[in-house]
Amino acid sequence: MIRPSERAVDEKRSLSITRNYTCHAEGSVLVATGDTKVLCTASVESGVPGFLRGKGQGWITAEYGMLPRSTGSRMGREAARGKQSGRTQEIQRLIGRSLRAAVDLSALGENTITLDCDVIQADGGTRTASITGACVALVDAIRSLQRSGAISTEPLKQMVAAVSVGIYQGQAVLDLDYIEDSSAETDMNVVMDESGGIIEVQGTAEGATFSRAEMNAMMDLAEKGIAELIAAQKAALAE
Amino acid sequence: MIRPSERAVDEKRSLSITRNYTCHAEGSVLVATGDTKVLCTASVESGVPGFLRGKGQGWITAEYGMLPRSTGSRMGREAARGKQSGRTQEIQRLIGRSLRAAVDLSALGENTITLDCDVIQADGGTRTASITGACVALVDAIRSLQRSGAISTEPLKQMVAAVSVGIYQGQAVLDLDYIEDSSAETDMNVVMDESGGIIEVQGTAEGATFSRAEMNAMMDLAEKGIAELIAAQKAALAE
Amino acid sequence: MIRPSERAVDEKRSLSITRNYTCHAEGSVLVATGDTKVLCTASVESGVPGFLRGKGQGWITAEYGMLPRSTGSRMGREAARGKQSGRTQEIQRLIGRSLRAAVDLSALGENTITLDCDVIQADGGTRTASITGACVALVDAIRSLQRSGAISTEPLKQMVAAVSVGIYQGQAVLDLDYIEDSSAETDMNVVMDESGGIIEVQGTAEGATFSRAEMNAMMDLAEKGIAELIAAQKAALAE
Amino acid sequence: MIRPSERAVDEKRSLSITRNYTCHAEGSVLVATGDTKVLCTASVESGVPGFLRGKGQGWITAEYGMLPRSTGSRMGREAARGKQSGRTQEIQRLIGRSLRAAVDLSALGENTITLDCDVIQADGGTRTASITGACVALVDAIRSLQRSGAISTEPLKQMVAAVSVGIYQGQAVLDLDYIEDSSAETDMNVVMDESGGIIEVQGTAEGATFSRAEMNAMMDLAEKGIAELIAAQKAALAE
Amino acid sequence: MIRPSERAVDEKRSLSITRNYTCHAEGSVLVATGDTKVLCTASVESGVPGFLRGKGQGWITAEYGMLPRSTGSRMGREAARGKQSGRTQEIQRLIGRSLRAAVDLSALGENTITLDCDVIQADGGTRTASITGACVALVDAIRSLQRSGAISTEPLKQMVAAVSVGIYQGQAVLDLDYIEDSSAETDMNVVMDESGGIIEVQGTAEGATFSRAEMNAMMDLAEKGIAELIAAQKAALAE
Amino acid sequence: MIRPSERAVDEKRSLSITRNYTCHAEGSVLVATGDTKVLCTASVESGVPGFLRGKGQGWITAEYGMLPRSTGSRMGREAARGKQSGRTQEIQRLIGRSLRAAVDLSALGENTITLDCDVIQADGGTRTASITGACVALVDAIRSLQRSGAISTEPLKQMVAAVSVGIYQGQAVLDLDYIEDSSAETDMNVVMDESGGIIEVQGTAEGATFSRAEMNAMMDLAEKGIAELIAAQKAALAE
Repeated sequence: MIRPSERAVDEKRSLSITRNYTCHAEGSVLVATGDTKVLCTASVESGVPGFLRGKGQGWITAEYGMLPRSTGSRMGREAARGKQSGRTQEIQRLIGRSLRAAVDLSALGENTITLDCDVIQADGGTRTASITGACVALVDAIRSLQRSGAISTEPLKQMVAAVSVGIYQGQAVLDLDYIEDSSAETDMNVVMDESGGIIEVQGTAEGATFSRAEMNAMMDLAEKGIAELIAAQKAALAE
Repeated sequence: MIRPSERAVDEKRSLSITRNYTCHAEGSVLVATGDTKVLCTASVESGVPGFLRGKGQGWITAEYGMLPRSTGSRMGREAARGKQSGRTQEIQRLIGRSLRAAVDLSALGENTITLDCDVIQADGGTRTASITGACVALVDAIRSLQRSGAISTEPLKQMVAAVSVGIYQGQAVLDLDYIEDSSAETDMNVVMDESGGIIEVQGTAEGATFSRAEMNAMMDLAEKGIAELIAAQKAALAE
Repeated sequence: MIRPSERAVDEKRSLSITRNYTCHAEGSVLVATGDTKVLCTASVESGVPGFLRGKGQGWITAEYGMLPRSTGSRMGREAARGKQSGRTQEIQRLIGRSLRAAVDLSALGENTITLDCDVIQADGGTRTASITGACVALVDAIRSLQRSGAISTEPLKQMVAAVSVGIYQGQAVLDLDYIEDSSAETDMNVVMDESGGIIEVQGTAEGATFSRAEMNAMMDLAEKGIAELIAAQKAALAE
Repeated sequence: MIRPSERAVDEKRSLSITRNYTCHAEGSVLVATGDTKVLCTASVESGVPGFLRGKGQGWITAEYGMLPRSTGSRMGREAARGKQSGRTQEIQRLIGRSLRAAVDLSALGENTITLDCDVIQADGGTRTASITGACVALVDAIRSLQRSGAISTEPLKQMVAAVSVGIYQGQAVLDLDYIEDSSAETDMNVVMDESGGIIEVQGTAEGATFSRAEMNAMMDLAEKGIAELIAAQKAALAE
Repeated sequence: MIRPSERAVDEKRSLSITRNYTCHAEGSVLVATGDTKVLCTASVESGVPGFLRGKGQGWITAEYGMLPRSTGSRMGREAARGKQSGRTQEIQRLIGRSLRAAVDLSALGENTITLDCDVIQADGGTRTASITGACVALVDAIRSLQRSGAISTEPLKQMVAAVSVGIYQGQAVLDLDYIEDSSAETDMNVVMDESGGIIEVQGTAEGATFSRAEMNAMMDLAEKGIAELIAAQKAALAE
Repeated sequence: MIRPSERAVDEKRSLSITRNYTCHAEGSVLVATGDTKVLCTASVESGVPGFLRGKGQGWITAEYGMLPRSTGSRMGREAARGKQSGRTQEIQRLIGRSLRAAVDLSALGENTITLDCDVIQADGGTRTASITGACVALVDAIRSLQRSGAISTEPLKQMVAAVSVGIYQGQAVLDLDYIEDSSAETDMNVVMDESGGIIEVQGTAEGATFSRAEMNAMMDLAEKGIAELIAAQKAALAE
């Protein structure tokens, strides 16, 4: 089996992480994995949502959107249709949960950090790229809170990254692009932290079911890929 | 470790499946797993959504809702608030995907079957109970299409059922009720077919991350639980 | 004239009232009148809406919904369409007004009781069954407030029940089922209290108009029917 | 008992009906009853809603609105809030039903007449004034269809008018203005045709219940008032 | 070139301004310019929107609507469609900005005046007629605040009025009616104060572009027309 | 007077136009004017909206959005709030009208080109930058229609560009950035074509009114600025 991109089965796409991509946000990262490009901004606001008020802890939340022509054919603009699709809500809930796992909310003070992940160009894997990029933007936002003296604690527990894996033509593969994703038998998104702890696994059979053995093969690839992604995040943050 | 319900770690709650619970729907099943009760109806309509028209195949879709006082404290009614929550949409997308895996859509004719899963009483595991109950309602609806002569094919490929598993006080457990679910370290919903093929896995760390070993322990429990559920579905259908 | 159900013109359908049908609500009643089944829950919440704050009185309100397949053909789910129909709003306003007539709001303390009437199965007369069932659930909720010591007063003034009457094939009849309702010349819903006081009358000509004499004949039937319903409510509460 | 307006108990407010109030609509009537002023326009459109297509009959429907400052204190604009209130929907459904009783829909051809009732100034009784005024606008619209040759039949069966009655300080009174309406024990809206046939009765106890005798006293007043209103409609149409 | 209305190119339509058109609002003006009729009410409410709270100043805002049959063919009701069109929002923002230019907000106290401009009958120029009429209603509302003693300052800085101008068949013309507006090459709305200061200019080419010379010719006409309108406003206020 | 940016009064910000910024759209342009950056994509779809069907002409429309953190403090996401603001709708209507002036719609065939203007980073002048950038994307989309053979005509009539001008500290200035815009006495957006024909003028006094002389001074600056912008558009298209 040769992948459409001619990558090896355990080879992820080339990754670039550009910090300070825009000038206003406390964290602003353009993450590009192959042709998928997502702008991830982290915005710090003082205060927390009502259900957390007075508990002395912070909050991390996320929103996700796709520019109407980030995709091969134009999608209707969600703002114009007047609601976010189920897919959008599912993804932004996933991003929020994943990023909260990176942080000790009680060390964040009563501050809210909102991660906006807006897809500029899509070629598969936008939700996992969003998580990987948003984690870098989140660190920059935390650093800005520390620099300004708003907090003197360290809320960052660990880096978090995500990748998609799948079964394509009977073979477990790492980091599916759109062509593979469209015809994969199984698609699985995995979120892990830097010590290999699993934060989220979402695997879906498309057509055929998958076996425990296939699931394990995919998890192996995900572990390898996420380790590489976290190395890249750390390199970007070290610049 | 003793579970709040005093069940063994690999013991699911008692299950009852009542067919023909209401009189109008082509399939109507009340599924009760412990104190969780969900009414699952299957409605057959001739025709398919626009994106499938003229392709000679059918469609399966699902909607999910909770009665406002199915829960410990009253939740706002989604119809009154004017939109379905992200959680609701996520669940009904999951139910629809899972049930489509049970059926050969090309053998269904240009018919749509809508599964409505309405939670009458909630005690954890409403989404997995919905899938388990809806599959029985779906079979009844398929049988009614066959009896009426609308189709002479067999669209049913296999039974599908779902269960939740989790890590509770460091231990993998089967079929979490609300008390366990509220304090579990990890919650994982698993959907499988009757031959043990995996249709969907959704595992989420709440607080601590989970390991590959824990994931495997949870998958073992899910396999056992789903096999029991499918046996119960078949028994109910045999009546 | 023989009614489709072969009932006498002044004969209502068989009624059953099941208390404690679900476990979380302060009052939970399944009311079944013939094939019409409505789950009525009463939820107590501390506090009142803004327009009543600080006035030292309570509030009773109601919401109404039909499960999508409670009817002969599936109706779109209101939560999915993003709004409640005019019919739904009309009915829930009627239920709320009717139940407030049963209660001395100033003896309720600053508590709100919300009656949720969800139609599980419909065969005509769902709004009147909702009122009859909700009144029993309301009493259970009031009793729970008293048992808990939240109030030491008696807010219940009187039982309230409702029935539909109509002109079917030129004849006044009591408690129309769906078949009669669909072809009745006039449909009238009547709400009364246990002393025969009228709380609400809503009569609508469908096709032909109706006369003062017909209106009086219908009111006579309504009085009889409601007296029987209130007796049944009291019997259920005495259990 | 002296009414705030010093009217006799069976005395309705002065009524004026101005036809051709605006220039574009096929029927355009400003109806003023005391200080209540409603602009009723009837708009003819070729075609019918989907559920009537191909049945060779017409349709009558109604919409109702209040200008934001038609009332003593400004109400939020429904277009700005993004939805019509339950009260608005209830009223426009009532107006539509009432006007359909005036017309033989099968003689209307496949035409739709929409009655828009917009309250310019409110002082109680806006829904009944809307019905009374809209019926005149409807006749003008029917006449325009006949003049243009679009139909050669006579769809008008009878004039329809409406009035409110109530129990005010223990006494049945005709045509309540806002002051009376605010403190009435019972409020009842009655719609009748010119031969005294009842089209709709909606009576609501506010606080105290009402008796059969009071109901009859109110109906007597309504009959008298509606007969006067229909005479005024006919006089206006004869000009 | 002869205008459809046979008016001279610099001749505006006849104008009438009727104060106290309805009885509840603090200012209520029916403005008629030719066949265009707009009811402008000014409602005073104590308090200001959140973004101004505690700043010791007032606020002026506007809402705009068209009755469904104010136009040649019936338009859908915005309240029924559940949102205001882009055109409606654009117009009400323009009216609000224009009227705020008439007033010293810091002399208004913490009061909000809402101008509701509802088009009863449309024949072109409804937004400019709204501004002209609303300014008179605003003055009446300010006078009522002063009479009641709520403020002892003079918030009114100057009268404001508006008119449309355009290029019709190659010629600059004043105050376009609907027929001219539909085929004009350019349409420009101008808002000025009584000393000729420009508050707003909005010129749009429809088809052909326009030149600086044409723009100047239109501005000359607008100056003339607005001077006449302001004289009429002052005459109406002097009554 | 020294401008905050130290630019001369008739000096616009530096401009860059990057074509083919993303890979899927038929035209994709990142326009940057100073710190304002807007991604303008042009999407070609076969077919036209309903109101143009069968007329043998094409359509140009536009949508506009701001990424939530394109601005100094985070704005709520319009898709999450469920509606586009009045400002957004006003701007996208302006962009659409302006771009339609660049094109002979009857030479476009029954094709629709949608311009999506999404603000990545905002520093004033986003609507005018959107028009300037979208025109380049539009040309690329037209060229792609011609290359593919879908049309063999030339729909492009002329280039169109836009700039803001204003009165800042009593002085007419070209191309206001956010700091100037926030405190300008007057803000005017001007859209012109390459022969100097005016397509749209929108001038708004903020605080003080402006005079005819000031309006002329602003128009002179706008002419100069737009000529420079159109030269830059042409240079970018020549690459």
